[in-house]
Amino acid sequence: MQKNKAVSMSESTSAVGGAGAHNLGIGTSRGRVTNADRWLVRQLYALLDDPSLQLRLWNGEEFSASDDGELVARVIVRERKALYRLLGNPNLHFGDLYSAGAIDVEGDLAAALEIAYRAPLANSTIAQLHRRLPRVLRGERANSLRGSRHNIHHHYDIGNDFYRLWLDPEYMQYTCAYYPSQDMTLDQAQVAKLEHVCRKLQLQPGESVVEAGCGWGGLARYMARHYGVKVRSYNISHQQIVYASERAEAEGLAGQVEYVEDDYRNISGEYDVFVSIGMLEHVGRDNYQQMGGVVDRCLKDNGRGLIHSIGRNRPAPMNAWIEKRIFPGAYPPSLREMMDIFEPWGFSVLDVENLHLHYTRTLEHWLERYEHNAEHVQAMFDRHFVRAWRLYLAGSIAAFTTGALQLFQVLFSRPARNDLPWSRAHLYGE
Amino acid sequence: MQKNKAVSMSESTSAVGGAGAHNLGIGTSRGRVTNADRWLVRQLYALLDDPSLQLRLWNGEEFSASDDGELVARVIVRERKALYRLLGNPNLHFGDLYSAGAIDVEGDLAAALEIAYRAPLANSTIAQLHRRLPRVLRGERANSLRGSRHNIHHHYDIGNDFYRLWLDPEYMQYTCAYYPSQDMTLDQAQVAKLEHVCRKLQLQPGESVVEAGCGWGGLARYMARHYGVKVRSYNISHQQIVYASERAEAEGLAGQVEYVEDDYRNISGEYDVFVSIGMLEHVGRDNYQQMGGVVDRCLKDNGRGLIHSIGRNRPAPMNAWIEKRIFPGAYPPSLREMMDIFEPWGFSVLDVENLHLHYTRTLEHWLERYEHNAEHVQAMFDRHFVRAWRLYLAGSIAAFTTGALQLFQVLFSRPARNDLPWSRAHLYGE
Repeated sequence: MQKNKAVSMSESTSAVGGAGAHNLGIGTSRGRVTNADRWLVRQLYALLDDPSLQLRLWNGEEFSASDDGELVARVIVRERKALYRLLGNPNLHFGDLYSAGAIDVEGDLAAALEIAYRAPLANSTIAQLHRRLPRVLRGERANSLRGSRHNIHHHYDIGNDFYRLWLDPEYMQYTCAYYPSQDMTLDQAQVAKLEHVCRKLQLQPGESVVEAGCGWGGLARYMARHYGVKVRSYNISHQQIVYASERAEAEGLAGQVEYVEDDYRNISGEYDVFVSIGMLEHVGRDNYQQMGGVVDRCLKDNGRGLIHSIGRNRPAPMNAWIEKRIFPGAYPPSLREMMDIFEPWGFSVLDVENLHLHYTRTLEHWLERYEHNAEHVQAMFDRHFVRAWRLYLAGSIAAFTTGALQLFQVLFSRPARNDLPWSRAHLYGE
Repeated sequence: MQKNKAVSMSESTSAVGGAGAHNLGIGTSRGRVTNADRWLVRQLYALLDDPSLQLRLWNGEEFSASDDGELVARVIVRERKALYRLLGNPNLHFGDLYSAGAIDVEGDLAAALEIAYRAPLANSTIAQLHRRLPRVLRGERANSLRGSRHNIHHHYDIGNDFYRLWLDPEYMQYTCAYYPSQDMTLDQAQVAKLEHVCRKLQLQPGESVVEAGCGWGGLARYMARHYGVKVRSYNISHQQIVYASERAEAEGLAGQVEYVEDDYRNISGEYDVFVSIGMLEHVGRDNYQQMGGVVDRCLKDNGRGLIHSIGRNRPAPMNAWIEKRIFPGAYPPSLREMMDIFEPWGFSVLDVENLHLHYTRTLEHWLERYEHNAEHVQAMFDRHFVRAWRLYLAGSIAAFTTGALQLFQVLFSRPARNDLPWSRAHLYGE
């Protein structure tokens, strides 16, 4: 069905991924294209099964489905080694190859990744295909592609200055925002998220809140300022604790908010409310029951809580590249898995809201700001880093758009808290 | 702490359970009370650990905690056999003994049962106590208490006329209502429930809906009339199907609504929407994945659905008496167990709402109407039946009030239904 032909793309769709291969020092011509190469690329292309994607090889040869229809993106494989390495483990190697510039994407990067997410059989089929290749072809796989070992800094070593470039400056929320109206700015939507969480928790002045994993401390400051509660927030990131404490001090909230540099498992004291926004992804599924035990230990008899986490429709491993290069140890649970936090301790789950569409929009806003500041990022780190984080943000958009990832907010309480609101209407008033 | 003394109760608190023992032909004096009897009653009373409850024995002797505080209810054990039988398996035998009139409750029956629900150790401890009794005392347990074998009709053999006495007459909803404002009548709240479900499902005119377990067909008629959809509803109760079909015919909805007398597992066709209100309790936890397979088979690619069910904070067996006498085979799942319906098939859970407080109020309304029509019920059946159903309704109030039962509405869809509303605000407008 597909044939080799040239396709013109409008410049307007090439905003993302425009960092050219030349800039990364990777040549556009890496030897002639053999018939075996062409056969492999056709198999690959057929698996993706989407005419809006075009493939281009290192010699300029192009593979696309037809003349009709609009191209969303063009994937450019800049050397033969990249092609064969990709086939060995597409989930893992695409990220490294893209970061190194050995594979490039012109057009809409997130949309191209969505096509890959929607072809769930592709990864395993490609790996099978690769295993059946003649040894001589498999042997072409480079053991060490230039740049692929480049050590991408892990999230929390990177420093506050990097995140300040693309998160909302006021609350520095590195978690899903909430868009009660879809034309909100990121800053507005992050405030709306904080407000949404506070309303769900029905905070009363003078109550005590404990927070597990507080990032840069924005939620605690919001709760203290707008709801008159006392908050103690735990976090193991030294940089974030320093930042959060300084902000609270500067804003006159030091008497109400305490940031503790410690693991959530060491939470002490008893509180009216437990809250954790975007930490569960790092807890690990074997530890959910234990985490529930921490909640049970620190929650008063009238207690309630909220856990906000990336999740899944069903259990699945983390994308290999993200897990290896961006979030080591991260695991987004299914709802069934999350229930290990609540059920052994008899908590009542009162409300589960899936905000996956809000995370897509949040990520679009982050990516937009990130691209706007790509030169800053490159000056702070390097081109590989810029490309890796671009891929991570665009890939996350694709994951939320295609349903590979979800965002669950779970509100819970001690059983028989019969004084809580009967309906959720209070979340939606002025 | 407790001592034997007389306590006066105001007549106003004795509205429920007022059917006297004399009417049931059970004497108020069944031999003298021995010291062994007294010791046992004190153990029992200590386990319940609530001063607002009083116990009275067949000879008039009373056990209560103190002079202070208000009495909520007085439990009257009308014969020694009843005391020893109760100790053998309180969860199972209390219901039979109450139904037969061998145990009576003056005052607030639901509140008395709440006290039992809040003493979760009582049942197993009492059974242990019973096993350690001297054989001669255990032997006093009657093998066949008069009336306990009385065969209480099971729910769906009872007939429409019985339910018409205390359900809302228009939609005959034998499931939890929804009270957006707490002063609503039952009739209003059942309409609000139907509307709440329809809004969650985002029904569009011309769409097709399949319903698993339709009761008397009220939801299907509401959906057809107010949302212009076509509904096919499955139910295995012949009486309900006949009633539902006649109502639809009479209301000119026969072209839009079809009631099928068949098991939900035999659903055929493809639909935009799957809905099931109050059937899951009868499905059995081993069948959840299979039920999800039925949903998967009958749901179009744009499909979404809602399952509304009584549930639990954590897995637990059904109350033995309810399971044996009222709802054979019933099992309310925990959320974790419910996820077996969704996760194996990759559905996205979009929204879980716990309406347990609404079920308490629904049951209060049902019990009020039931008591108002108790004489009708007695004329249709007999006194045992009247008392058994009173206990069932009051016991359900206690279960929802104390957190032993929950009510989950789970909204789900095929993954990546990105055209659905971003927030739930549309549920709360006019």
